[in-house]
Amino acid sequence: MQSQSEIESLIKQFAKLPGIGPRSARRLVLQMIREPEKWMAPLADHLTRTMNVLKTCTTCGNVDTQSPCHICADPRRDAGQICVVEQLADLWAIERSHSFKGHYHVLGGTLSAIDGKGPEALRIPELVRRVQANGVKEVILATNITVEGQMTAHYVTEELNGLDVAVTRLAQGIPIGGELDYLDDGTLGTALKARLPFK
Amino acid sequence: MQSQSEIESLIKQFAKLPGIGPRSARRLVLQMIREPEKWMAPLADHLTRTMNVLKTCTTCGNVDTQSPCHICADPRRDAGQICVVEQLADLWAIERSHSFKGHYHVLGGTLSAIDGKGPEALRIPELVRRVQANGVKEVILATNITVEGQMTAHYVTEELNGLDVAVTRLAQGIPIGGELDYLDDGTLGTALKARLPFK
Repeated sequence: MQSQSEIESLIKQFAKLPGIGPRSARRLVLQMIREPEKWMAPLADHLTRTMNVLKTCTTCGNVDTQSPCHICADPRRDAGQICVVEQLADLWAIERSHSFKGHYHVLGGTLSAIDGKGPEALRIPELVRRVQANGVKEVILATNITVEGQMTAHYVTEELNGLDVAVTRLAQGIPIGGELDYLDDGTLGTALKARLPFK
Repeated sequence: MQSQSEIESLIKQFAKLPGIGPRSARRLVLQMIREPEKWMAPLADHLTRTMNVLKTCTTCGNVDTQSPCHICADPRRDAGQICVVEQLADLWAIERSHSFKGHYHVLGGTLSAIDGKGPEALRIPELVRRVQANGVKEVILATNITVEGQMTAHYVTEELNGLDVAVTRLAQGIPIGGELDYLDDGTLGTALKARLPFK
């Protein structure tokens, strides 16, 4: 399909996105071609509009349409608790759980010697300054339970050492709905070691 | 996430597309938010550009950036063969097989009393006029092997009755790579009835 250049290149553009292969990209574009005014115009419009209003919160690193973001600006949320996460995706995940009403700090990744990611790239000095400046009572480390995530959590803990703040981490163990037979040995071992009195 | 209205509405817009659920829409948008200039601007640009150049070929109903489309305009293709398909998706599928070098006629669906789709809505009169006007030697009916597709094929055959043109249809039988054990009875029965001498 040589001369269908725009259509082909739109398909390729979609196929680059995560989770969309060439096949689903084709289906998407076919659907849009059927009613261009209904699909293409609104999507192009949404993309442009969103791009123009995106702001990274200078306080916590959240991406929002305002800075400070709506979480940092919300007076009903507890500024005394800061939940430290690697990525924006993690912040969204915790928000979806509706189980946290404090503030966040998005690092933007993990410490990595190979990628040349040091503490500055991860906004760790900003976190230390936030804890020093405000009445922060607790820092909850919610980095991933991976080697890099835990290494980063350890580094953050050391940086916060000496400051008047409690540093906690997420509980590790069997996930809700988890079946022991299907779990990896690491999770099982951790859950066994961290066992609690049955109430 | 009340005040993230633009981001949320972009996610919802993506989630409306076929094959994209709320979860993958979120992943897409997260990826884009990371590098808005790299993802959002080109996609919005592609969408707008494609929408503005889309043309439906007045001859065959193909959607292209030109009319007559690049297939109708290609002198290397045989205008004496017209392959009749239901949808643009079917035309694309046959083109991908690289096994047809004639012209197409896209009906835009199947006859349907319920949806009020009559012969005019399906561009069947246009097909008859094409056959009458030009030196068309063969009309290949490539509608789907469904009740509606076959009913539509029958109707087209009747409309072409009396004109000096051969009307053919796609072969039906076991698909390439098909295992008999997994095939439906209809396909097996058809393949058995339509058996050919072994060469």
